[in-house]
Amino acid sequence: MNDHSTASEERARARSLGIVVGALPTGPLNAITDVEGVLVGHTTLDDGADLHTGVTAVVPRQLTTGRRALPAAVCTGNGYGKLVGSTQVGELGVLESPIVLTATLSVFRAADALLTYLMRLRRDGLSFNPLVGETNDGFLSDIRRRPITERHVLDALEGASGGLPAEGCVGAGTGTTALGFKAGIGTSSRRPAVDGAQVTVGALVQANFGGVLTVQGVPMPVGELVPDAGPEEPSGNSCMIVVATDAALDARQLGRLARRAVFAMGRVGASYSNGSGDYAIAFSTAPPRLATLPDDALNPVFAAVMDSVEEALLNSLFTATTTTGVHGHTSHAVPYDRLPRKTRD
Amino acid sequence: MNDHSTASEERARARSLGIVVGALPTGPLNAITDVEGVLVGHTTLDDGADLHTGVTAVVPRQLTTGRRALPAAVCTGNGYGKLVGSTQVGELGVLESPIVLTATLSVFRAADALLTYLMRLRRDGLSFNPLVGETNDGFLSDIRRRPITERHVLDALEGASGGLPAEGCVGAGTGTTALGFKAGIGTSSRRPAVDGAQVTVGALVQANFGGVLTVQGVPMPVGELVPDAGPEEPSGNSCMIVVATDAALDARQLGRLARRAVFAMGRVGASYSNGSGDYAIAFSTAPPRLATLPDDALNPVFAAVMDSVEEALLNSLFTATTTTGVHGHTSHAVPYDRLPRKTRD
Amino acid sequence: MNDHSTASEERARARSLGIVVGALPTGPLNAITDVEGVLVGHTTLDDGADLHTGVTAVVPRQLTTGRRALPAAVCTGNGYGKLVGSTQVGELGVLESPIVLTATLSVFRAADALLTYLMRLRRDGLSFNPLVGETNDGFLSDIRRRPITERHVLDALEGASGGLPAEGCVGAGTGTTALGFKAGIGTSSRRPAVDGAQVTVGALVQANFGGVLTVQGVPMPVGELVPDAGPEEPSGNSCMIVVATDAALDARQLGRLARRAVFAMGRVGASYSNGSGDYAIAFSTAPPRLATLPDDALNPVFAAVMDSVEEALLNSLFTATTTTGVHGHTSHAVPYDRLPRKTRD
Amino acid sequence: MNDHSTASEERARARSLGIVVGALPTGPLNAITDVEGVLVGHTTLDDGADLHTGVTAVVPRQLTTGRRALPAAVCTGNGYGKLVGSTQVGELGVLESPIVLTATLSVFRAADALLTYLMRLRRDGLSFNPLVGETNDGFLSDIRRRPITERHVLDALEGASGGLPAEGCVGAGTGTTALGFKAGIGTSSRRPAVDGAQVTVGALVQANFGGVLTVQGVPMPVGELVPDAGPEEPSGNSCMIVVATDAALDARQLGRLARRAVFAMGRVGASYSNGSGDYAIAFSTAPPRLATLPDDALNPVFAAVMDSVEEALLNSLFTATTTTGVHGHTSHAVPYDRLPRKTRD
Repeated sequence: MNDHSTASEERARARSLGIVVGALPTGPLNAITDVEGVLVGHTTLDDGADLHTGVTAVVPRQLTTGRRALPAAVCTGNGYGKLVGSTQVGELGVLESPIVLTATLSVFRAADALLTYLMRLRRDGLSFNPLVGETNDGFLSDIRRRPITERHVLDALEGASGGLPAEGCVGAGTGTTALGFKAGIGTSSRRPAVDGAQVTVGALVQANFGGVLTVQGVPMPVGELVPDAGPEEPSGNSCMIVVATDAALDARQLGRLARRAVFAMGRVGASYSNGSGDYAIAFSTAPPRLATLPDDALNPVFAAVMDSVEEALLNSLFTATTTTGVHGHTSHAVPYDRLPRKTRD
Repeated sequence: MNDHSTASEERARARSLGIVVGALPTGPLNAITDVEGVLVGHTTLDDGADLHTGVTAVVPRQLTTGRRALPAAVCTGNGYGKLVGSTQVGELGVLESPIVLTATLSVFRAADALLTYLMRLRRDGLSFNPLVGETNDGFLSDIRRRPITERHVLDALEGASGGLPAEGCVGAGTGTTALGFKAGIGTSSRRPAVDGAQVTVGALVQANFGGVLTVQGVPMPVGELVPDAGPEEPSGNSCMIVVATDAALDARQLGRLARRAVFAMGRVGASYSNGSGDYAIAFSTAPPRLATLPDDALNPVFAAVMDSVEEALLNSLFTATTTTGVHGHTSHAVPYDRLPRKTRD
Repeated sequence: MNDHSTASEERARARSLGIVVGALPTGPLNAITDVEGVLVGHTTLDDGADLHTGVTAVVPRQLTTGRRALPAAVCTGNGYGKLVGSTQVGELGVLESPIVLTATLSVFRAADALLTYLMRLRRDGLSFNPLVGETNDGFLSDIRRRPITERHVLDALEGASGGLPAEGCVGAGTGTTALGFKAGIGTSSRRPAVDGAQVTVGALVQANFGGVLTVQGVPMPVGELVPDAGPEEPSGNSCMIVVATDAALDARQLGRLARRAVFAMGRVGASYSNGSGDYAIAFSTAPPRLATLPDDALNPVFAAVMDSVEEALLNSLFTATTTTGVHGHTSHAVPYDRLPRKTRD
Repeated sequence: MNDHSTASEERARARSLGIVVGALPTGPLNAITDVEGVLVGHTTLDDGADLHTGVTAVVPRQLTTGRRALPAAVCTGNGYGKLVGSTQVGELGVLESPIVLTATLSVFRAADALLTYLMRLRRDGLSFNPLVGETNDGFLSDIRRRPITERHVLDALEGASGGLPAEGCVGAGTGTTALGFKAGIGTSSRRPAVDGAQVTVGALVQANFGGVLTVQGVPMPVGELVPDAGPEEPSGNSCMIVVATDAALDARQLGRLARRAVFAMGRVGASYSNGSGDYAIAFSTAPPRLATLPDDALNPVFAAVMDSVEEALLNSLFTATTTTGVHGHTSHAVPYDRLPRKTRD
């Protein structure tokens, strides 16, 4: 599949635009893949017409190759969404599958495909808990077609790799729109010092929520920046956030991280509206039997979560390109010329 | 499809065996369908060999024909399960789809099929929240085949009707096992007086959980009643409970009912084990704008929930028939000759 | 203070009446104090007239002498109660103070007294999280007097000891009534094998809730057993349950234990009524840095919780004595002659 | 009591400093008292030396004079706090008492005093659920003295009135510090249109939390603005938020408002740190039996909550005055000369 919409635009991440969130150092890639063992894969469906959708997979190798469940928690910021798998994560405090993100009406087909993947991993298993999130890309994509197939999901999972993941209009972010602009997938990372040791925190977002874009405190209403942006507000806005860390944390503590991931949406102007499915999933790749960090050492980790989510959200917007989709709806890329140049320092 | 296993056994509901739970009157059918507008449909897959599974649908006409969301709540008693749709019920406090029950590894195919049903109901909709529960019938059925198709689910939904629903080895209960015995679907109802008016409470269960069968306080360990019952304990035990009422209750109050539904499992000997996915869903069919009942009037409703769930669980066991399935596993029907004859009065 | 009400009655624990709950072995005392380091103290206020109330303290030495917070969780079965300290236990997953139980309207004075105790333990501390539960003994005691003083609470804390705690009409159970009969404090313990090692689980209850007393499945309505029992139903029924274990469990797992403690109330006939404040607090005394048990090893621990809570509730009833209190209200002791003699075996 | 610290400083609310949050209209007072029937009272303890503490009461007349419970919900943003009364609000979905705010170690004395107040209101009552929040003013005040008496609390309750409440270093805000600066009590209101009708939303905050002050997106680190501010960071940072509305909302919906109140803390730079007790309580004064608003009409109400909480937080900072307290600790007022002058428009 080709990506018809991005041909003519040069897009950039927040940092190359001079926008730095917070003072903590990033990992080498400034991406969720800075967390050792965490891979990302995308399948993009973009027919240049009515389909702008896809699949993004976050695959912790500790879980697939390593065959162990990882401590994890889910925070439901606003539960207008169809997240699959949350109650078992809550009960057992573990992630038992890679995380797959896709479009709302394809979420069950994606979950069934992820089940296929898990059944291959464990050939005698009779019970699996796939975790699949979604946001609604129906503003740009013909969502009622439910175009995601098992093959698309397996491709994202099997093609997952390290390195800097593609961002913007790719995978599950192909058709999403946030804060009035075209958005998509974004990622970022931080390396805070905790009790003298350095840990890594990475975030990946599928951004599709309402509000007024706010870049380092400066509101940038779409109506001012893109005069010809229509009045139409996409329905079913939502945000899926994945937080990975190599810090040794238990499920309760990861729940605290997940809550802060949702809090960070406010920093870029989220309205936390009624129809938004705002969820964060946090997991730890630390080896089992490692003693968990004490709670009173977590403030740098909380800051790392909030900063990496904020920057991941900005990256999801800045790397996305103007897209026209179903019903002729257009979602505009954030114009760079109005961005604040100074960093918080 | 034929049901090969029940040919030679006469089975009965608890009351016709002389077992009466509590003092409250039942509705005319002693079934969830006593709640006006609530329909039940089953699709049974039983090939007499490796497949013993199916689909059960609870369809509130107020939602389908009436096209309105119904106040609802979910209680997660033990979250080792794959219930689809819970976070949105929690956020908005409404049921937006019929409830479908099926087998664990088929839950996402069933959810996708229910989505098809909902998309037909609302042809311009871009977002739907299907509610699908499951328990694991892998002890008797080749669950990894994922045999449930869209057609099976639509048949259960479209074939849903009033009247006394079939119980025992039928629909989503075809292959389930509870408390050491063959179990399945069961239902019951109560009509308590609340503030001078009579309301109806109905329960339907898909019973598949561990423990020692306890009938009106008398423990009936399977090892004593069925000497040749093997030592094998089915994995993935769980229980799905659906509670319907015509009482005017809001989502918070329905959450209180749902919790009591889970509490009632203990009355028949549930062990609430680690691997059990124990969930209750409660919804109200009362017309909107009717003033909700005050909380201090709810005790009779709570009692009605607990009694109808207890009796529905007993019905699910007493009406089920000895079944031999995959790997030659056999699950035995509860023998009647050892049942206590006296009722609580 | 004298206890005027118990002079003429010989009371006994469930086991000496031939009633054995479940098959698991108990600890040597069959009490929460079987958990190494856990002490219990009571202050009883009984003026033979209008005051029948008191304080019960559960003091883990690991926390007081050992000066460390213990992993802990609270389950709110029905939140019609004034439990002090729950949100911080939920957030941090630890118990930071002994647990004090008392009467509803004295709960804040007791919390302030517990604060005094904690401030003495940590003389530079500026923040403490006392945990204080209550049930309403207003049926037998003039609760509006708020008779509990700081001295009463400190006495219970400082006088806490090992050995078999007093049960029945003592401490916070002096004025409580459950299932129609006089109740009070009860305790029990179990020693299940988990992964080849033996762990100890102990429960202590303050029983004050509604329903029909059910002993090993046999309902014993007060109206049948005590013909002259009045029609009056005490208001504000509730149940506080404390579960201690030396098993290495984290807060999430202890939350699973706490839920089962609430489930166990149903076994003795709890109605889980609207006005009941039903809470369980579970904590672990295991040394830090000990690896937590895997969840799939917890079934014996769950069974130990349910059995010890059931037996503690029976003990709280069987050891209590007929009491006449404020407004001439009388609450009758359970008569032994109607008890079932056979044990579950 | 005199307020020694504010004599020489002229302080102002955000709007008179040219800072306007959002586009929604405020109520006439721009205060929580714009919600009809909601009164505010303060008792301030400031001895010019070691005591800087007090009590603030929010008193809905519908509850006191009107003698009815009000629909309500609590959101625990970060549960490192001693909020009294939350589980019963969660269970029954109602506020049954005025809301009292005070200092951490005085919270139980304040709760007991509020109980006195409630017992006078309902002279035959045996059960009450006082709601008392706290933050830790131990940086400026000798908190271990527990100086709050019953009289202080009754004075705040009985002296509660309409009109613009005092802000800054007053009542429960006398000794609080937020975002590096002296803070205190703040309030604000909004009047959004919902389904064609105007509703009122008011917020009152007790601000005492960590982070970097951010005014309309501009970070204002205390180290830059007040060069002689010490390095000491107050312990036990927290934030209590009260949201009142006359919109007809049920408890579930008010829970959604309360969550947004916590989200709004991020807009002024909250770090949501480990040791913060961040809670929001939302209640509705709408007459019972009024049909509740549909959820899909709530976005303007959500925006009103977020804007009024943000502005209340700014007011709590801008109106507070430099204070020196226990141990010679000083907390500095926000200097106005560095504030951004432009409004978001």
